[in-house]
Amino acid sequence: MNVAIRGRSRHFRTVTFDHARNVVLLIEQRLLPHEFKIVATQNFRATAAAITDMVVRGAGAIGATAAYGLAQGALAFHGRDLNKFSAHIETVYQILKNARPTAVDPVNAMNDVRAAMRTGKTVAEQQLLALAAAEEFANENVRHCEEIGRRGVKLIRNGMKILTHCNAGWLAFVDVGTATAPMYAAQAQGKIFHVFCDETRPRSQGAILTAWELAQQKISHQIIADNAAGHLMQRGEIDLVIVGSDRTLGRTGEVANKIGTYTKAVLAKRHKIPFYVAIPVSTIDWNLKRGFDIPIEERNEEEVLGAWGMVSNPQSAIRNPQLVRREYVRVASPTSGARNPGFDVTPAELITGIITPAGVFKPQELWKRRRELGFAGWKSYPM
Amino acid sequence: MNVAIRGRSRHFRTVTFDHARNVVLLIEQRLLPHEFKIVATQNFRATAAAITDMVVRGAGAIGATAAYGLAQGALAFHGRDLNKFSAHIETVYQILKNARPTAVDPVNAMNDVRAAMRTGKTVAEQQLLALAAAEEFANENVRHCEEIGRRGVKLIRNGMKILTHCNAGWLAFVDVGTATAPMYAAQAQGKIFHVFCDETRPRSQGAILTAWELAQQKISHQIIADNAAGHLMQRGEIDLVIVGSDRTLGRTGEVANKIGTYTKAVLAKRHKIPFYVAIPVSTIDWNLKRGFDIPIEERNEEEVLGAWGMVSNPQSAIRNPQLVRREYVRVASPTSGARNPGFDVTPAELITGIITPAGVFKPQELWKRRRELGFAGWKSYPM
Repeated sequence: MNVAIRGRSRHFRTVTFDHARNVVLLIEQRLLPHEFKIVATQNFRATAAAITDMVVRGAGAIGATAAYGLAQGALAFHGRDLNKFSAHIETVYQILKNARPTAVDPVNAMNDVRAAMRTGKTVAEQQLLALAAAEEFANENVRHCEEIGRRGVKLIRNGMKILTHCNAGWLAFVDVGTATAPMYAAQAQGKIFHVFCDETRPRSQGAILTAWELAQQKISHQIIADNAAGHLMQRGEIDLVIVGSDRTLGRTGEVANKIGTYTKAVLAKRHKIPFYVAIPVSTIDWNLKRGFDIPIEERNEEEVLGAWGMVSNPQSAIRNPQLVRREYVRVASPTSGARNPGFDVTPAELITGIITPAGVFKPQELWKRRRELGFAGWKSYPM
Repeated sequence: MNVAIRGRSRHFRTVTFDHARNVVLLIEQRLLPHEFKIVATQNFRATAAAITDMVVRGAGAIGATAAYGLAQGALAFHGRDLNKFSAHIETVYQILKNARPTAVDPVNAMNDVRAAMRTGKTVAEQQLLALAAAEEFANENVRHCEEIGRRGVKLIRNGMKILTHCNAGWLAFVDVGTATAPMYAAQAQGKIFHVFCDETRPRSQGAILTAWELAQQKISHQIIADNAAGHLMQRGEIDLVIVGSDRTLGRTGEVANKIGTYTKAVLAKRHKIPFYVAIPVSTIDWNLKRGFDIPIEERNEEEVLGAWGMVSNPQSAIRNPQLVRREYVRVASPTSGARNPGFDVTPAELITGIITPAGVFKPQELWKRRRELGFAGWKSYPM
C-alpha cells in the first residue's frame, strides 16, 4: 500500500524480492510507526533471523518471507549436482522453518515452493521454479486480500464509523491486509467513512501499526483506548466492526484472535452492531472441534507492566541516537506481576459474518462451504 | 492502610493534618508507584496547589484535603477581629474551591467545616471548631469506607478471584477506599482470594495505584490488560467484580465510572458473574433523571497516544536524577489522533448490587432507600 515519504506517496509491499541482488526486501516493522525503512536480507540465514527477530510479523507476511528465503537459498547455490542441491535446500528449509517454530504459514509456503521445484530437471531449472513459486505465493496472498476487499466492500456504507482491533492490515500480509481490505476497497470507490482503532494493549498494534497504515492511506481514523469502544457503541458512534483472525475453526465458526476481540464481539452483539471477521483461507483450522481446545499463549508479563514508545523529553534520551528507537517504560507498580493471555476465542453466535476470498459466510456455514473455500485456490489448506 | 518502607509495614492515611506545624500531610501520588513520599503543604495556598497539581486525587481524598486546608487557613489567622477573620476565611474557601473547579467533594467538605465554625463566638473558638470539623470530615470518610467493607465483605468467599477496574482504593479516599474496602475486610477475616486489576488505560490507575495498594497490603493480585477480562471470564477465572463510582444516579441506579467499567459490566452479565459497585453516599446524584444526561468528559488525546512510566534503560535517562520520575513515551503512530472519553455509564440492569455504608442494595432500590442513605450520616448529600 502507500507510504508517504518526504511528502510523496509511494507504493510498497511488506515483503518483496530483488532477483538481481538475490535479497529479500522487508519493511523493518520494529521501527514503525516512528521510522519507515526497508531492509535487505543478504542471505537465507539473515532472512530467517528477520523472521525470528520480528523485523517482519503477521501470518501472510512471514509465509511470503519464508518462501522468498527458500528461493534465495536455492539461487545462492553454485554447482550442478542435484543431490548436493537437495541437501542444501533441506538445510535452508529447516533453518527457515525454525525461525518461528509455532507458525504454520512459513511451512505451508515453503511446501508450495518445494512442490514446484520438483518438476525441474536441473539445478538451474529448480532455482528458477523456486523463484517463480515464491513470487506466486506472494502474489496469491495479495490476490486473496484483494478478494476479501471486493467481498467486504459492500458492508461499508457512506458515513459509517468502523471499529477494528489489533492489526490485520497490509503489514501483516504481503499487501492490502484482511480486516483493512474492505476499507481500502471502499476508499477506492470514493466512500467516506471513519475508523476507530482499538489501541490493542498490551502490544498496542492498533495504535502503532493500524493507525500508521490508515494515516499513510489518508483514511480518517482515531485511536481509542480498548476501554472506550463500549461507551462509543452505547452512544451510537460505531456502525460496524471488522477484525482479523489468527485461527478460525472450520467446523464451528469460532474465531481465535488477539486478546480483546471477544470483548468487542460481546459489546457489538449487545448493541446489535454487525461484527465481521476477515480471514485468508489459510487461517481456517478444519480439524479442531471446539474453540476451548485452542491453546491460548500466555505471553511475557512485561508487555502488560509497561509500554514501548518514543521518549518525548528532548533534554534526555531523544538526543542519544541509540534511543531514536522505542524505549520500554515500566508503568505498573514495581512489585506487581501480570497475567497476559495473548488471544481469545469468539463463539460463532457473536459473529455476523466471515469475509473470505470466496465470499461472506455465516460462521456456521464454513464447513458446508469447505469445497468453495478449498477451491478458492489456497493450495496449502489442510483438508 | 499499610505501606512497606524499608521492609517494615507502617500505617498511613492518604491525607492527615499536623496541628503542631499547621501543615497538611499528603501522599505525593504523582510519584507512585515508583516512590513513596509524604509531602507537607505549608499553607492553604500550597494545599490548594496540591489539589490542582494532583499531588492528591480521588473524591474523598480531595474533600478531606480541602477541609484541612480551610482549617489550616483559619489557624494561620492572627488577631481577634471576627470580621477580618470571616473575610480571610472567605478567601481561603474560594482559593480551595477553585483548586479543582468541577469537583463537588471539596465544596461539600468545606461547607461542613464552615457550618461548624459558625457556632464559635471568638476567632480562637472558630479556629478550633474548624480543626475539629475537618478531622471529623476525614474520620467520617474513613468510617464510611469501613462500613462499605463491613457490608461488602460477605460477598467475598474463600478462593474467589475478583476483578476490579481503575482505583477506588484508599488512595482515592482518606483511608480504606470503596471498591477495595470489602477486600481489606476479607483479608482481616483471614479469607484467601486473588484480585485481577484491570490496568485501566489510558491513565493506568489500576496498574499504578490499585496494584501498588494491594502489594503494600500483601493481597494476592495480578495486573491484566483491559482486553483480558473477557477471556478470563470465559474460562471461569473471575467470580466477582467490584468497582467504584464517580456518580451514581439515585433515581435510576445508573453508575458513571472510569471508561471501561460499562464493558466489564456487559461481560459480567453475559457470564452471570456478580457485578457490584461500592460507593460512598456522597457520590449519589439524587437529581439527574437519566444516565445519558451525565456529561462525559473528553480528555486530552495524549493520554491515549502514549504512556507514563519509568525509563528502564540504565544507560540513559535513569541516571539523570531529573528523570527518576515518570517519563512520557509516545506509543502511537505520530500523525494519528485519538478520542478519549474519560467515563462511561453502566445501566442498572447490569449491576447486581450497590455496596453503600448503609447496606447492599439493588441499584433500582436506591430511591426507595433514600432516607436510609441520607440517615447514614453523610451530611452534605443534597436531598
